[in-house]
Amino acid sequence: MDQDSNNKTKKEPTISELRQDLVSGTWVVIATGRAKRPEAFKEQKREAFQEPLGNCPFCNLGDPEKEKDSLIYLKENGDWSLRVIPNKFPAFKKARALNKKEEGPFFLMDGVGFHEVIVTRDHTRQMANFEIAEVAEVLDAYQERYLALMNRRYINYISIFHNHGQEAGASLVHPHSQLIALPVIDPDISRSLSGSYNYWQANKRCVHCIMIEWEKEYGKRIIFENDDFVVLCPFASRVAFEIRIYPKEHRPYFERITDKEKFQAAEALRIGLNKLYRGLDDPAYNFFIHTAPCDGKAYDHYHWHIEILPKTAVWAGFELSTGIEISTIEPEKAAEYLRGIQT
Amino acid sequence: MDQDSNNKTKKEPTISELRQDLVSGTWVVIATGRAKRPEAFKEQKREAFQEPLGNCPFCNLGDPEKEKDSLIYLKENGDWSLRVIPNKFPAFKKARALNKKEEGPFFLMDGVGFHEVIVTRDHTRQMANFEIAEVAEVLDAYQERYLALMNRRYINYISIFHNHGQEAGASLVHPHSQLIALPVIDPDISRSLSGSYNYWQANKRCVHCIMIEWEKEYGKRIIFENDDFVVLCPFASRVAFEIRIYPKEHRPYFERITDKEKFQAAEALRIGLNKLYRGLDDPAYNFFIHTAPCDGKAYDHYHWHIEILPKTAVWAGFELSTGIEISTIEPEKAAEYLRGIQT
Repeated sequence: MDQDSNNKTKKEPTISELRQDLVSGTWVVIATGRAKRPEAFKEQKREAFQEPLGNCPFCNLGDPEKEKDSLIYLKENGDWSLRVIPNKFPAFKKARALNKKEEGPFFLMDGVGFHEVIVTRDHTRQMANFEIAEVAEVLDAYQERYLALMNRRYINYISIFHNHGQEAGASLVHPHSQLIALPVIDPDISRSLSGSYNYWQANKRCVHCIMIEWEKEYGKRIIFENDDFVVLCPFASRVAFEIRIYPKEHRPYFERITDKEKFQAAEALRIGLNKLYRGLDDPAYNFFIHTAPCDGKAYDHYHWHIEILPKTAVWAGFELSTGIEISTIEPEKAAEYLRGIQT
Repeated sequence: MDQDSNNKTKKEPTISELRQDLVSGTWVVIATGRAKRPEAFKEQKREAFQEPLGNCPFCNLGDPEKEKDSLIYLKENGDWSLRVIPNKFPAFKKARALNKKEEGPFFLMDGVGFHEVIVTRDHTRQMANFEIAEVAEVLDAYQERYLALMNRRYINYISIFHNHGQEAGASLVHPHSQLIALPVIDPDISRSLSGSYNYWQANKRCVHCIMIEWEKEYGKRIIFENDDFVVLCPFASRVAFEIRIYPKEHRPYFERITDKEKFQAAEALRIGLNKLYRGLDDPAYNFFIHTAPCDGKAYDHYHWHIEILPKTAVWAGFELSTGIEISTIEPEKAAEYLRGIQT
């Protein structure tokens, strides 16, 4: 029954497994490297969030050589402004083989991939209050790491995300983003891609472009636009005050963003985050980039974008059971309110 | 642009809209009837959870006639033991028409359906500490309401769920379950159904039956079994200490449960909940029933079950972005720990 017994050639122990749900096809990660004693789950609700400033691991990063930085940006004074480091408690790790296995009717493989943290210098100031150039630097780092990892062996999808606030799953106050490069494309991602593909096939046009065109005509859900990007509350918002940021032109691949577009995207992201910060009194939120997979296939029908999901509600039984989310404000009203917030 | 202007024949205002995401096909509910001022979202994180006992609305329910009870169970002493009442802040409401609309490229319809609350008598004692007969009475009420609503016009899916604890979205301490009968079947549900159907077509057997058979042989993830039900931590657990309860025999439809099976299911559910209560120190959790839709089609390939998801982690950017969840304990270890907990 131990399917692992022939695989003792690995140098390092695996830190996680990817297991596939046999019915829905969805993948889950069992992060054994982060595992705690079962009893530890009792106490976790009482874990402290706010560390004393002096103890912040990101304020006290060591030598870039020792920390195995994969990227470092310096200020004029020689101090660093941004560093990309391996996650200390990674959910995915580099390995020589995927080590696919079966257990009875089930499929699993090792959690092979990369898990990096993008850290900015200032402990207290959050992204909503960054200068545009500072946000652009963060996007720069996202792009640089994406390009560096997208052609690595076994890497088929790269997720880039930022958690702010304890309710949104951030374990540290110090602003940081994460990048996870992984070998599988979940059905959740596939559904969005295939919906987009089917629309392209049927209508010879990008579904996102059609939405953006309509939103510009309709106007009520738009919060901000500049030359290259539009910021809006989507028609089918999953949560109250959900925000999406789309390139106005058809752009499938985030990693091909130009420097000019990057600055425009930074302005759009900074304004979206700042309006939430001011309008909702610093809510917890997650934002992430949805872009085409890097599995070598063409996704010219896709249209990359950023989604910002403020933590305005708790997922409960109905959402978990059906996948249908209940939002308690019309996106039109949320957009009207956010349009009125000065940034 | 106002597509609603021709639909003024409705007697009552709608309380919600179902909007479909154009790309993924997923539905969301915009519950305008529950809407708050935008500014109110600022304050909600400070809302009190625990009401003084005397103010509990479920302890102070009025006359069953006035409350429009759809079900009431009485004790021998004449007091009620369980009541099913309409939700005071429903996400779905009875109506004469779905009122399907288009807005530009988007589709929406009114939130037509039923939203009921199943309330038990005791304010403080939670389901984990119920007697088996009391749990069986709750399952009785689920079944009775399911049967009463499943053939109503526009009803295609019925979600039955129970939220316990504030972190799991429960807005009141007093134990209660909810039933939402709705007109749409979300792609999330469809994916599970079609996965099950495809397996049935390819292998001429139920995928859930195959899993249960394997789990019984493997043994490591099983927590408890009785004549008719098995309680286990699933191979691809979405969260730490996830529990599923399956009928051992192939049973597609929850609403056809027999009285004998109901008592066995109650014992299984009570043991699952009680092990979490004792083993994890009263965690917040959601449980829900996954069963075949009631849209008039045959789902003989499906296998109903109960899923219990303790709130052991917060969904963050990675989960929201990819649909892949990260769990920090192997289901085998979680099951071993829970097996050892005395109930």
